[in-house]
Amino acid sequence: MSRDIPLHGIVAYPITPFAQDGSVDLPKLRALIDRLLTSGVHGIAPLGSAGVLPYLSDEEREAVAEAVVSHVAGRVPTLVGVSAMTTERTIHHARFAELAGASALMVIPMSYWRLTDDEVFRHYEAVARAVSIPIMAYNNPATGGLDLTPEFLARLIQIPNVTMVKESTGDVNRLHRLVQAAGEDVAFFNGSNPLALDALVAGARGWCTAAANLIPQETLALHDAVRRQDLATAVRSFRRQLPLLQLLVRSGLPRTVAAGLEIQGFDPGPLRLPLRPISEAEREELRTILASLSSLEAA
Amino acid sequence: MSRDIPLHGIVAYPITPFAQDGSVDLPKLRALIDRLLTSGVHGIAPLGSAGVLPYLSDEEREAVAEAVVSHVAGRVPTLVGVSAMTTERTIHHARFAELAGASALMVIPMSYWRLTDDEVFRHYEAVARAVSIPIMAYNNPATGGLDLTPEFLARLIQIPNVTMVKESTGDVNRLHRLVQAAGEDVAFFNGSNPLALDALVAGARGWCTAAANLIPQETLALHDAVRRQDLATAVRSFRRQLPLLQLLVRSGLPRTVAAGLEIQGFDPGPLRLPLRPISEAEREELRTILASLSSLEAA
Amino acid sequence: MSRDIPLHGIVAYPITPFAQDGSVDLPKLRALIDRLLTSGVHGIAPLGSAGVLPYLSDEEREAVAEAVVSHVAGRVPTLVGVSAMTTERTIHHARFAELAGASALMVIPMSYWRLTDDEVFRHYEAVARAVSIPIMAYNNPATGGLDLTPEFLARLIQIPNVTMVKESTGDVNRLHRLVQAAGEDVAFFNGSNPLALDALVAGARGWCTAAANLIPQETLALHDAVRRQDLATAVRSFRRQLPLLQLLVRSGLPRTVAAGLEIQGFDPGPLRLPLRPISEAEREELRTILASLSSLEAA
Amino acid sequence: MSRDIPLHGIVAYPITPFAQDGSVDLPKLRALIDRLLTSGVHGIAPLGSAGVLPYLSDEEREAVAEAVVSHVAGRVPTLVGVSAMTTERTIHHARFAELAGASALMVIPMSYWRLTDDEVFRHYEAVARAVSIPIMAYNNPATGGLDLTPEFLARLIQIPNVTMVKESTGDVNRLHRLVQAAGEDVAFFNGSNPLALDALVAGARGWCTAAANLIPQETLALHDAVRRQDLATAVRSFRRQLPLLQLLVRSGLPRTVAAGLEIQGFDPGPLRLPLRPISEAEREELRTILASLSSLEAA
Repeated sequence: MSRDIPLHGIVAYPITPFAQDGSVDLPKLRALIDRLLTSGVHGIAPLGSAGVLPYLSDEEREAVAEAVVSHVAGRVPTLVGVSAMTTERTIHHARFAELAGASALMVIPMSYWRLTDDEVFRHYEAVARAVSIPIMAYNNPATGGLDLTPEFLARLIQIPNVTMVKESTGDVNRLHRLVQAAGEDVAFFNGSNPLALDALVAGARGWCTAAANLIPQETLALHDAVRRQDLATAVRSFRRQLPLLQLLVRSGLPRTVAAGLEIQGFDPGPLRLPLRPISEAEREELRTILASLSSLEAA
Repeated sequence: MSRDIPLHGIVAYPITPFAQDGSVDLPKLRALIDRLLTSGVHGIAPLGSAGVLPYLSDEEREAVAEAVVSHVAGRVPTLVGVSAMTTERTIHHARFAELAGASALMVIPMSYWRLTDDEVFRHYEAVARAVSIPIMAYNNPATGGLDLTPEFLARLIQIPNVTMVKESTGDVNRLHRLVQAAGEDVAFFNGSNPLALDALVAGARGWCTAAANLIPQETLALHDAVRRQDLATAVRSFRRQLPLLQLLVRSGLPRTVAAGLEIQGFDPGPLRLPLRPISEAEREELRTILASLSSLEAA
Repeated sequence: MSRDIPLHGIVAYPITPFAQDGSVDLPKLRALIDRLLTSGVHGIAPLGSAGVLPYLSDEEREAVAEAVVSHVAGRVPTLVGVSAMTTERTIHHARFAELAGASALMVIPMSYWRLTDDEVFRHYEAVARAVSIPIMAYNNPATGGLDLTPEFLARLIQIPNVTMVKESTGDVNRLHRLVQAAGEDVAFFNGSNPLALDALVAGARGWCTAAANLIPQETLALHDAVRRQDLATAVRSFRRQLPLLQLLVRSGLPRTVAAGLEIQGFDPGPLRLPLRPISEAEREELRTILASLSSLEAA
Repeated sequence: MSRDIPLHGIVAYPITPFAQDGSVDLPKLRALIDRLLTSGVHGIAPLGSAGVLPYLSDEEREAVAEAVVSHVAGRVPTLVGVSAMTTERTIHHARFAELAGASALMVIPMSYWRLTDDEVFRHYEAVARAVSIPIMAYNNPATGGLDLTPEFLARLIQIPNVTMVKESTGDVNRLHRLVQAAGEDVAFFNGSNPLALDALVAGARGWCTAAANLIPQETLALHDAVRRQDLATAVRSFRRQLPLLQLLVRSGLPRTVAAGLEIQGFDPGPLRLPLRPISEAEREELRTILASLSSLEAA
């Protein structure tokens, strides 16, 4: 068991590209990973929300985990999403990812029936016991349907290898409360794009973001400015990218990132139904936003 | 395509029993169906929320659908849950259930990413086009994560074989608005247990309920009293069973029904993790409630 | 101290008419009371939300209380609103209304700072001790800013002369829970117009409504149908008037009642700023709704 | 009309002390103002939420406004709360405060009936037209009952002398959106104590806070650290005072500040009913928190 915290900085969430026949397009996924690695992000996190984890079959999930981890090949740490409705399936995917060589695992309690605190705690405990690599506990009621308080998250990271927290409610008070409950050394990451500035100021170790698919340099610039305490630069960078971060939330990560990649000349293939492309008006807004951000990215 | 409305009255939602090795226990499921049929309920709905649909594999779902439909053998209509995250998987299960002989299908848009109205509409359209039996559109934001307004539900039932609506928000105003939006003949069913009285008064064709696993006679008595406009009897029956209906909501259907069946001498086997049994205090409360309701059930 | 419950049935909430110079128009208020008495409503409740209580000075409140109680002159019971931000002012108005001859008092805890349960309880206790007539405890978080649970309301009516509850959240489950917490004999009244049918079915003693300013016969018809257990007639009546009840909520009682009275030929004078008249589109909708309801009212 | 922005930095909100007979204690209020001025705060704001504005009579409000403005005597700017339910009363108090010599006015739309955007806009317009000093538009749905979006606040400050915004929702995204909607030069102030750090980082001109009654040096230290871009010091200061800021929100400003002043040896007199003192447990917690913060304050 390890209290390692293998991640920091900009943790990029690639989308999962699909071929025209609807199958997962692994070659294109590798190309997307290459783009991200070239941009200098600090970590790669396949099978997150942006990667439409819940829309993939078990086999597809395994193929993506294997492909990404082996393609990254240790150049940066990998954080593989292994959540599932049942504890049994979560353990299955956790073990698979560990064998594939993942640096860490991300687990969100996927809820249909509102789980009790005890059920969530023992779910994490069972998964954590089944592997030896570090786990990031993840709170995102908007997608997962269950809300874990900062105080409960502080309890979760007392499980031996649950060493990291990702918080995505978008409420900065949660982050401050997490530090109060778990101590200043708690390794927490921000998962709410429009909260990027505030979370880094509040002490987040990193920013888990799908924005890095489209504007990696800008996300890195914001992160670096806060790290060197250059508040004025950080605020300027944040304000520049905020319209994109808001659009990502409003129109949904997989739809918006796919449209943005297409605008940037990288064809991501179709979305998996029921997901459909953003509207033409949203696409136009996205085009304008990306154009205004392109100078730094081109540099 | 059919505008048939094959369901009415008390539509019972069996839980899915599991064997000690964690597999689905089909013989026990058939025994539970027998209990329900003997009690006189008007319909059987496998693979609902009570049946832990999202916790089952594709193969398990098919086995349950097949077992229930063939065991019921037309004695009452069957309503089979076929929801899935992707449109492709939903169609797969819809076709399977139709071939198995289901009377109708229940579809809730399972959401991870908040779907747009257009995405939900086209999802229903695609599923409806793939089968010829009637479909019940189902709104339950507490489990499905997506809220369909009465006005949107009224649009959904304009799809040729989407002929029924199940509403589970627990807000009676939604039912009144549905009637306003879709006309007095709209075939809607109540899915919120504590709203049973009000929904039937508002014109619901039936009550979709897991309470029928435990107190079928009481649910039938309430239904019949409203049907013959005997308001005093209906209110008395409702007040008697309300504590159970509230406990079902508070402690969750599969957990509470399983505990109740056990109290009544029917061993449902273990729950599927991460779900765990209700607490001893809840069990004591349940025991007291069931005892107070037993005279009618024994009759 | 009295456990009297002097009210039942349709309790009508008159608006407060203003003259062109902005002062309260007492002659017109008396004319409005006459309209209501002629229509056959069972009670009159001045200084409610519809009567813009919080927008009146202490002197205006006293003038309205005195004028209404003396003009009604015991023909039906009166329920006078006496709420204020401070306990001292509430007691002042409670005593004034008692001296003026009010049958009962309505008290909502007006909150700026979220009051604790203890503060609310002792506020009611202090007001109740200061008078000998019955008090109706009133819950309406949408206007009062504070939400009293059914269980807390059940505690409030243990205060000797707090004998009645008015519930306006619009959630019928609250009414069922109130009966559970306070017993079947609890005297509760409905204050949510779109919940009129359900509340009467659930056992409400009456319906506190500003709709009686515009469609008194229809409100009486619904009430009477439920009383004689004629569910079919009750549902028909409810569905007829529901569009008006919804518009009253959506556009606000004082604005909508004022516009409706004007359409019916009774000039209510201007609203008190910041309140302004409903839009022309809303007025057109109101005109159509009232026309469709006019046959019963003319009878 | 003036686009002046007379306030910045720590704007302190004194509570309103009461004498044992329940009347406003003006000498004690002056002593509290002296404490605040000595501590070095940048502005004084009587008749805010902490000053229990809605619990005071018109005469008491005038006495407080006059006493504070004349006692401060221009040593720092004053921001006087003039909100009332009606437009007429708000204008009355606005004119009184201007004549008394206030530097600026704070106006929150106090809502009983949910006001429309048009009603709120014209309310501000009418008040602004009646005076020539600057006005701060204030959003606080938790107390005022009405929620003004950042985009609507951006519209409000287009009224000639509405030059400042105070935002108290506690959601930092609102502040970022306000800057997007109104431009980087928008003069906004933070009114949510637990958001103090984030709001200053986001560009707030100042922090409107009742915490300055108890820990003025700590609030000034946080403000100054952000001003000189010393993020590490700012975060340390914020974390030190956060437990107090959270307690102020949880237990309510007037109650908690009164208890804190008493602990610090300044007797604030009784609260005005229905408000009552915090519990003994809360007082003990407050005592511990204040003790841990005392070294800086004593310095």
